[in-house]
Amino acid sequence: MITAEVIKDLQSADLSYVSGSLQAVATKVLPPEQLEKGCLVFITKQDQLETVLKAGASIVVAHKSVSLPEDSNATFFQTGNLQMAMATVLPLFDGKMNRYNQAEKIHPTACIHETAHLGQNVYVGPFAVIGEHVRIGDYATIGAHTVIEGHATIGDHTLLHPQVFVGANCDIGSHCEIHPHTTIGADGFAFAPTKEGTHKKIPQIGKVVIGNWVEIGANCTVDRAALTETRIGNGSKFDNFCHVAHNVIIGENNVFAAGFKIAGSSRVGSNCMVGGDTVVSDHVTIGDKIMIGGRSGVSNDVLKPGAYAGYPLEPLRDNMKTLATISNGNLPRLRKEVARIMKHLGLKEE
Amino acid sequence: MITAEVIKDLQSADLSYVSGSLQAVATKVLPPEQLEKGCLVFITKQDQLETVLKAGASIVVAHKSVSLPEDSNATFFQTGNLQMAMATVLPLFDGKMNRYNQAEKIHPTACIHETAHLGQNVYVGPFAVIGEHVRIGDYATIGAHTVIEGHATIGDHTLLHPQVFVGANCDIGSHCEIHPHTTIGADGFAFAPTKEGTHKKIPQIGKVVIGNWVEIGANCTVDRAALTETRIGNGSKFDNFCHVAHNVIIGENNVFAAGFKIAGSSRVGSNCMVGGDTVVSDHVTIGDKIMIGGRSGVSNDVLKPGAYAGYPLEPLRDNMKTLATISNGNLPRLRKEVARIMKHLGLKEE
Amino acid sequence: MITAEVIKDLQSADLSYVSGSLQAVATKVLPPEQLEKGCLVFITKQDQLETVLKAGASIVVAHKSVSLPEDSNATFFQTGNLQMAMATVLPLFDGKMNRYNQAEKIHPTACIHETAHLGQNVYVGPFAVIGEHVRIGDYATIGAHTVIEGHATIGDHTLLHPQVFVGANCDIGSHCEIHPHTTIGADGFAFAPTKEGTHKKIPQIGKVVIGNWVEIGANCTVDRAALTETRIGNGSKFDNFCHVAHNVIIGENNVFAAGFKIAGSSRVGSNCMVGGDTVVSDHVTIGDKIMIGGRSGVSNDVLKPGAYAGYPLEPLRDNMKTLATISNGNLPRLRKEVARIMKHLGLKEE
Repeated sequence: MITAEVIKDLQSADLSYVSGSLQAVATKVLPPEQLEKGCLVFITKQDQLETVLKAGASIVVAHKSVSLPEDSNATFFQTGNLQMAMATVLPLFDGKMNRYNQAEKIHPTACIHETAHLGQNVYVGPFAVIGEHVRIGDYATIGAHTVIEGHATIGDHTLLHPQVFVGANCDIGSHCEIHPHTTIGADGFAFAPTKEGTHKKIPQIGKVVIGNWVEIGANCTVDRAALTETRIGNGSKFDNFCHVAHNVIIGENNVFAAGFKIAGSSRVGSNCMVGGDTVVSDHVTIGDKIMIGGRSGVSNDVLKPGAYAGYPLEPLRDNMKTLATISNGNLPRLRKEVARIMKHLGLKEE
Repeated sequence: MITAEVIKDLQSADLSYVSGSLQAVATKVLPPEQLEKGCLVFITKQDQLETVLKAGASIVVAHKSVSLPEDSNATFFQTGNLQMAMATVLPLFDGKMNRYNQAEKIHPTACIHETAHLGQNVYVGPFAVIGEHVRIGDYATIGAHTVIEGHATIGDHTLLHPQVFVGANCDIGSHCEIHPHTTIGADGFAFAPTKEGTHKKIPQIGKVVIGNWVEIGANCTVDRAALTETRIGNGSKFDNFCHVAHNVIIGENNVFAAGFKIAGSSRVGSNCMVGGDTVVSDHVTIGDKIMIGGRSGVSNDVLKPGAYAGYPLEPLRDNMKTLATISNGNLPRLRKEVARIMKHLGLKEE
Repeated sequence: MITAEVIKDLQSADLSYVSGSLQAVATKVLPPEQLEKGCLVFITKQDQLETVLKAGASIVVAHKSVSLPEDSNATFFQTGNLQMAMATVLPLFDGKMNRYNQAEKIHPTACIHETAHLGQNVYVGPFAVIGEHVRIGDYATIGAHTVIEGHATIGDHTLLHPQVFVGANCDIGSHCEIHPHTTIGADGFAFAPTKEGTHKKIPQIGKVVIGNWVEIGANCTVDRAALTETRIGNGSKFDNFCHVAHNVIIGENNVFAAGFKIAGSSRVGSNCMVGGDTVVSDHVTIGDKIMIGGRSGVSNDVLKPGAYAGYPLEPLRDNMKTLATISNGNLPRLRKEVARIMKHLGLKEE
């Protein structure tokens, strides 16, 4: 139960109090079209206003383009950036840390090596395993069943959900969040072919180094480097089912949608956005400020900032034309027409 | 060891007893071409009959189109629907619940919050974690190492295999089956971009609601909604590696093959079948009774019942022609021929 | 800390000692461009030599094409196959088994059924669950939180990393390595459609049989067969996110890159290499010595040894031409040119 006053007290630059009682209370947050009485709601358009007031919204966060009424029972806030307002207000309703409610901060069933070092106010869930010489920063949360192998480090305020795996020697920065069933630091995939046709494993003795404010979704994999480091820079975000192979180096503030896969030794700069299910071949470099559409295949370097898509990758505008040519029966028609022209001109297939 | 009598006693509408001793015994079930003496076998074709009798089949379940012999040591059943006969008979040989053999129904190592409510005859495996106020229905099975966070509900007769994750507040219906390493209720993927180029997390305060008789394969993810519910309707079935993003609403009795991914806020109706590795973009609506081939990409609404495939998606028949045009060197040949025609006609590239 | 003498004592056919002190010591292994003093380095090209000597390499393993200096403080080895030299030398630096350091070989928290049989020198990590009648070979390692259901077998020297799932009755050979969050032996995906439009589960009563020297990456799935066995032959290697469906039979010494998926009842021979994200349809046969490029879709049998790629699959050389035709705006241009020709010739669309 959150009051308008608590929201005002956030003193966010993205949110300004307009009118109404600061004692107004919201028990939950719902979208305009599903609103119930006593809720907080975010609206972007003028025509949503009447709906949400009629439904009994108690607190309304409106985009600044919406004209607010002078007389209303609701309490109003304004924002120039609705997404940012949501990012600011919703933590009040999240209660994520309540998921980890337990009598003692360090659950008595957790298996923590005597040489491991835990910072202040660390939470460790049931059956977590923390190996030798692991270092865990202040206010970190280690979910139930999460395994952290020896000599790994976890930064301050980082949240590892349940059932995460962090392999030996890997480093995860501060303020990171990693979701269940994600595997950090499994071996890179490398074998030396023998004359007999078998493949001999090349041990992967490197590690994974992840910066600060990185989020990695559920069921992802980031492999350890062959010799040195697979790196993910500060502020990069990965949706579920992403795969980062060994020796890959990824810069800062990138966003990768679900199913992104990048093969060994490739690089991504900073401030890129990549759509779902896109695959990057090995030893490819993607520069800064590159936007790549979903389902793309990147097999050559892409250095010039801009929007791209397709396989083979091309500028997004070109790819839209290519896709338009491929669909609607255009290709089979083209083939028939060329055959017809050839016949018309008396040309024979070569 | 199952007798013909036990099978007869199933009294299934899809299976009728024809002839032979009801004391006949089968110790396992094998395909016709690998049959061993004393087994049960399912056959669809007349020419399999001699083979399986020679191999010493003890119980034969035959499609009704197969003429059965009058004198034989085997016991015969008939069916009009072999798949349904398998679905009916094979549970007798499955012994799935034997996987969970243990001395006590609630394994003493399980970590169950004192406020959790477990129904009758619930099984809980080693090291399972059940959070506060979780409700688990009668005859449910919670596998080893499965984590169920606070306030989640699990319906009657539902089977969660080992190492499943069910996040806080999520609801799973009755008679569901969820395979290992599947993540239900990780956060949806949503960030507000800042002026500085970083991305601020938008908390995902919704949940996942799964109906009854839903099966979800191994290593899948179903993300919690931003504010409300990600929903999967009764009877929908998912193979391994499926991904359902936040706010997605999926209807009833759909079948999704391995690697199906659907992005945020998209919808699927009911009675659809989708091939492997198909990807649906965000905010797309797929109607009822839609069949989509494997490897397709769906980026626009598909409302008319029928069969579709490809990327861009087109009616299946058209896509078969498109694929035929793309393969066998047709495209490069087409390009050459057009160049030749242009030259022949004295036309210049524009 | 490894001495040159230890490396010489490996007596590998792929590595010969050339010159320098056998007391030379290396503390780590780094690539030539990141070398630090006192390291071991592998070099393939003459021009790397000066760099690594200047950086203070203590042990240099050089391809035999590199001319080595007569006077140097470093110790030199030569090899005709650098990858094989890495596969030979790097285990000395790996320390993988150190990840599993614990006071007792069988961790006291592991839950081992009294009927399970463990060989000699078996390691079992914290919270591992080993079911009834499981058999584990000598020198096998069972990681923390790994679950092995009843009647499964694990061969000698096999390493199951933490959080692996091995389902009931499945057999894993010797010298295998399976990475975290991989699911061996979840149910195959099979349902009988009912008249009412629902789908009734066909129980999967078969199992998975994996040969020797098989490596399976993180977050993979290998489903159990419907009735018999899903099989993976000796020496086959799988990167992360691979999916092997029920009844699939895979031969020996194949290499599958990340995201490879193969649908039910398909077969792969031996000595194949398959690129990332390639998908094989059901009931398809791939022969021996087939190389398939990444992102391909295989929907028909491929029996002739050779290199292939694309969807539809075609010989690699043809596919390179097809991709060249698809990119760079060729298709939209082709379409325009054909329209222009049609107009020029006074031909009308049919």
